[in-house]
Amino acid sequence: MDSLFYAVPAASLIALLFAFIFYKQMKKEDEGTPTMKQIALYVRQGAMAYLKQQYKVVIIVFIVLAIFFAVLAYGFNVQNSWVPFAFLTGGFFSGLAGYIGMRTATFASGRTANAARRSLNSGLKVAFRSGAVMGLTVVGLGLLDIALWYILLNAFVHDTSAAQKLVTITTTMLTFGMGASTQALFARVGGGIYTKAADVGADLVGKVEADLPEDDPRNPATIADNVGDNVGDVAGMGADLYESYCGSILSTMALGAAAFFQDGEAMQIKAIIAPMLIAAVGVVLSILGIFTVRTKEGAGMGQLLKSMSVGTNLAAILSGIASFGVLALVFGTKDNNWWHFSLSVVSGLIAGVVIGKATEYYTSHSYKPTQKLAGASETGPATVIIGGIGLGMISTAIPVITIACAIILSYLCAIGFDIQHLVSAQNLSLGLYGVAIAAVGMLSTLGITLATDAYGPIADNAGGNAEMSGLEPQVRERTDVLDALGNTTAATGKGFAIGSAALTALALIASYIEEIKIALERVGEKVVGVGGDLIAASQANILDILNHYNVSIMNPALLAGIFIGAMMAFLFCGMTMNAVGRAAQKMVVEVRRQFREIKGILTGEGTPDYSRCVEISTKGAQHEMVIPAIVAIAAPVIVGLVLGVAGVIGVLFGGLGAGFVLAVFMSNSGGAWDNAKKYVEEGHFGGKGSECHHATVVGDTVGDPFKDTSGPSLNILIKLMSMVSIVMAGLTATFHLL
Amino acid sequence: MDSLFYAVPAASLIALLFAFIFYKQMKKEDEGTPTMKQIALYVRQGAMAYLKQQYKVVIIVFIVLAIFFAVLAYGFNVQNSWVPFAFLTGGFFSGLAGYIGMRTATFASGRTANAARRSLNSGLKVAFRSGAVMGLTVVGLGLLDIALWYILLNAFVHDTSAAQKLVTITTTMLTFGMGASTQALFARVGGGIYTKAADVGADLVGKVEADLPEDDPRNPATIADNVGDNVGDVAGMGADLYESYCGSILSTMALGAAAFFQDGEAMQIKAIIAPMLIAAVGVVLSILGIFTVRTKEGAGMGQLLKSMSVGTNLAAILSGIASFGVLALVFGTKDNNWWHFSLSVVSGLIAGVVIGKATEYYTSHSYKPTQKLAGASETGPATVIIGGIGLGMISTAIPVITIACAIILSYLCAIGFDIQHLVSAQNLSLGLYGVAIAAVGMLSTLGITLATDAYGPIADNAGGNAEMSGLEPQVRERTDVLDALGNTTAATGKGFAIGSAALTALALIASYIEEIKIALERVGEKVVGVGGDLIAASQANILDILNHYNVSIMNPALLAGIFIGAMMAFLFCGMTMNAVGRAAQKMVVEVRRQFREIKGILTGEGTPDYSRCVEISTKGAQHEMVIPAIVAIAAPVIVGLVLGVAGVIGVLFGGLGAGFVLAVFMSNSGGAWDNAKKYVEEGHFGGKGSECHHATVVGDTVGDPFKDTSGPSLNILIKLMSMVSIVMAGLTATFHLL
Repeated sequence: MDSLFYAVPAASLIALLFAFIFYKQMKKEDEGTPTMKQIALYVRQGAMAYLKQQYKVVIIVFIVLAIFFAVLAYGFNVQNSWVPFAFLTGGFFSGLAGYIGMRTATFASGRTANAARRSLNSGLKVAFRSGAVMGLTVVGLGLLDIALWYILLNAFVHDTSAAQKLVTITTTMLTFGMGASTQALFARVGGGIYTKAADVGADLVGKVEADLPEDDPRNPATIADNVGDNVGDVAGMGADLYESYCGSILSTMALGAAAFFQDGEAMQIKAIIAPMLIAAVGVVLSILGIFTVRTKEGAGMGQLLKSMSVGTNLAAILSGIASFGVLALVFGTKDNNWWHFSLSVVSGLIAGVVIGKATEYYTSHSYKPTQKLAGASETGPATVIIGGIGLGMISTAIPVITIACAIILSYLCAIGFDIQHLVSAQNLSLGLYGVAIAAVGMLSTLGITLATDAYGPIADNAGGNAEMSGLEPQVRERTDVLDALGNTTAATGKGFAIGSAALTALALIASYIEEIKIALERVGEKVVGVGGDLIAASQANILDILNHYNVSIMNPALLAGIFIGAMMAFLFCGMTMNAVGRAAQKMVVEVRRQFREIKGILTGEGTPDYSRCVEISTKGAQHEMVIPAIVAIAAPVIVGLVLGVAGVIGVLFGGLGAGFVLAVFMSNSGGAWDNAKKYVEEGHFGGKGSECHHATVVGDTVGDPFKDTSGPSLNILIKLMSMVSIVMAGLTATFHLL
Repeated sequence: MDSLFYAVPAASLIALLFAFIFYKQMKKEDEGTPTMKQIALYVRQGAMAYLKQQYKVVIIVFIVLAIFFAVLAYGFNVQNSWVPFAFLTGGFFSGLAGYIGMRTATFASGRTANAARRSLNSGLKVAFRSGAVMGLTVVGLGLLDIALWYILLNAFVHDTSAAQKLVTITTTMLTFGMGASTQALFARVGGGIYTKAADVGADLVGKVEADLPEDDPRNPATIADNVGDNVGDVAGMGADLYESYCGSILSTMALGAAAFFQDGEAMQIKAIIAPMLIAAVGVVLSILGIFTVRTKEGAGMGQLLKSMSVGTNLAAILSGIASFGVLALVFGTKDNNWWHFSLSVVSGLIAGVVIGKATEYYTSHSYKPTQKLAGASETGPATVIIGGIGLGMISTAIPVITIACAIILSYLCAIGFDIQHLVSAQNLSLGLYGVAIAAVGMLSTLGITLATDAYGPIADNAGGNAEMSGLEPQVRERTDVLDALGNTTAATGKGFAIGSAALTALALIASYIEEIKIALERVGEKVVGVGGDLIAASQANILDILNHYNVSIMNPALLAGIFIGAMMAFLFCGMTMNAVGRAAQKMVVEVRRQFREIKGILTGEGTPDYSRCVEISTKGAQHEMVIPAIVAIAAPVIVGLVLGVAGVIGVLFGGLGAGFVLAVFMSNSGGAWDNAKKYVEEGHFGGKGSECHHATVVGDTVGDPFKDTSGPSLNILIKLMSMVSIVMAGLTATFHLL
């Protein structure tokens, strides 16, 4: 094992250490008045109760799947025998990260509100450092899991050759992403349904019918709404990016081991260690960035945003520069590979920044598109909806072109612009390694980007706490500034999550082919090599494997797969939309019932039954997350059995293409509607309470599941379908109708 | 030339003859009272004025493109010299069909209203036979154009061999689809924007603000709304299906000439004539079906629907049976090809029926999904929108799986289930020919399916005429029954249009590769053949051509293309949504102005300025159609120049996959919203004027551009991008960066 490798567990421990320090610092803060404590406790209990329910469902699913994998591995020998264990640890660490992040967030929001009584900077610091706990826990646990498995498998795996051993290790490790994916699926879908059922229910009855302001304690759904921010935006987002983070590193490792197979063990180890090291250095730079985020009293949105941008951009720029150093160190400077790959890393980093900026442009009401959308409210809710959908669809252009450029550039850089042999077997392997490492680059500063993201719901909850505790208006003003910033960082964070999911999914699809190769080898099936002779699968290159399974673009199974994959994205989205609709309707009925039956509730004399609403959201989410999850996991398996490898590849590409664009559309439409409403509330087009305001509230309500349930769930879908295919590669390779 | 061929021009003339007879019959009907005549005249004038404006834009575009093609063909020799002429005739015939259909429709609606005063059956007969004029004109002119060019090119083209000559003829003819595509683009996009700007404007102010009923003469936008039904649903739909009809036949011919190239001229001619003959027989069967559509007085929706279903299903079943006879006749019964291909035809026919039924299930308020959607109105417009989007997204599953099955089955049937050699070069050619002929099968009964479609807006306008002329309530009741039927046939017609567009686009993409081969041949570039030797492009098989351009699924240009293609569908949709939004807002402002400024307008004493609204819709459509059109035409060209053939193929598949699913989603969401509103109007959930009704009106308004502008425009986009790529193949093949 290369001594450089030990930087990886070291970085992981540093991340966890700082997470712990930030957590302790936050806990030391005063939680404020007894009312504040009480409200924070309600929210914390609700969130924990939900997480408990979610984990109950998840544990059943994990047990069933682990047994299934064990049967495939030990009973039918179509799967690596490590898979069930790797699957379980991936799920465990992802769940743990979500738990820690959410626990931190629910402790932090009351303290943020209390710190905001002191000063804006204090509020920002508490909220942001608490967000950083989530960011650093995710990267810390991710790297830890990767490092542990790498050490473990190096000790226990034995294979025909050293080079082959590394291929086996890395393709085995890849399957541990399946655990993270499954956990993320439930966190994103369940959390997304929970938060929006509560939010939509709270808005529709509380705001529209009873004319209560946001976070009013008289609204029975308001605690559930605040709980939702935590379970959806903190735990869900964290699990999503944990998956992307691990997935990108693991697939780069697998592609590296495959690409340099002919060059022997030493070169392979370099390619395997490179992504881990880039991530490790990114951790340190993220911590550096976190310390730069601070502001002065009386700062407006602009200054706050700038202070966060400075932190994230600093980390990104340093990470880009550092990647040259890291790769020179790993690969040595004798050949060009090191700086070729560095350029790939940089293209990923730049793509992440561009997508974030484009998202901000289309969804922030500082810019034309959202302002115009607010203007559409003058002709009623229908034109707001039409305008928002149009805006979201058009907003897909820049992110897609950016990702397309990132794919091509990171590929071309990795092959040293050898366009003459664009898709030779050797260049394909190198180029796909380049694409994968670009995803690692994009995610290398996740420690801080996720901090800016998890910060949002903490600030949002802090505002809720201030409102419900009846704190002085100045505090609410401060938390509003923090919250507004949170909305912007949430939007850019979503763009970033989608972009990184797309690149990661692409890397996973490339790794799928390596996994198929391993599967062929296990059953001893030979393939046709370059000269037309039959060769062992381990000696075959990527093109031989594709040919073996008739993976041609005009193969009808692949064509059908593309359609089915694109459909999967829409079907999954539709199911989650409907799930929110159903759960929200139940919430509406309950809130209306409380308004009707609990005396004095609207005058503040009666106390609403918060826990009943929390229960409805919890049950709704638990109930509704099951079917979409089964569909997402089963579809690639069924397609694999019926249409074979070519069909699976079609599904993955169809799902990735349509799913990515659909996710961007839904997130941006939702973000723009949210901010168009805020823009009207700031006094434009008649301000609060006007007809225009009501029209934008309809837009915002429609946008809620768009941006917080269905859109983000698509990130999971596109990665999960690839992950399932990877884990099931052994079955697909040995049995398929077509 | 095979003597069987002459059945094609004969069928074309039969179609045109019956169209003429039906037209004359309709013209003989009495147009009713002077008021009725006056209103019909307003609508007719408005429609013709719009068509004139549209053709003005179209002519400029055609001249520019024809010159461009001429430069490419004569200046740079990267294109066939027939292209500019083929392009122009394709556009001319498509425009002519649209003109005749719309002229007929605008003459027919007043007469339908008047006939409905006599009896329901009379009304149905006038409306349906007038719709049949459109259906038969489209198939008649389509077959005529194809037959004429086939005769012409057979006489004038000279090539190295007889087999090569047929390849040249069919690939040349394919480019005439470009004219039809361009015409369809403007008809669908312009017509779609026109009709929905008027409809949304009329609804938002007239219905919601002033509480006027539908088609009330006091509403200034009502004439524009009725004009819109004609320009969007008649002319737009006709041009769309004209393009699919010709595109499917032409691409089957091209694929047939290529697939049987090695078998020599005689076999090629059989493969070329087969699709034309299937279409020709379908024409006759369509006419037969048209004559079976009739009903009794007092018939309800169920019986009316049944009478139409009998007609279309009869034509479809007979067409399926006839295809066995036709193909046995063409190919002879010595080998199995004839019945292999017949099965392909049947799979296309069945797919068309299944998609139609699925569309009906999801959009008709006789079924659960739409009824449930209506129930979502109890919690306001936001949940109606969320529910409708969820419904539309989920409704994509059946059509997509159907198309996926149709692709695989028609391919497998064509290769005689030779799964062992699924994608051998020979089987690829045969299989893709099978997919293409399935599209022809699906479209073979277009004469009657389009009649049921064009019938809808005629009945709709008849209702408008009855309302505005103040006819006795009984007449309006009858036209309402006819109109309700029209809504159902319109929804199934849309499903059918999308399904056929998908199969046609797939056939076009397959033909694209043939076109690339011809382009390589023109410049004399050699390709690597099976043995590794360089061979002439004309001797290369489809796999050699794909290899020559590195068309591998993992080629980064292809991957980037998939993303870009998927994005194109969303971008195009977004642009058309916004176009409707902008044009509708102008309409709203104008209607509000008239209500404010024209005295006595709401009491019926003042006359609204209808023409001003017609002008706004016309100008809005004319103005807004240009940019989406440029984007749709330019994108594949730019991608071709930058990313080369692999990139173009990626874009086409990405666009086809995402575009098809998006189109189904949008059409079905829109249809369901429309019928959910109707369901409430029938008295459920509070009925007309209730809060629930208002909520469903918002849904319907959002659904208008979904189902009548953006959704249907996607049919054009996916075909047009393939067509542009085909026409530009010469340029792409000789110049590209990657």
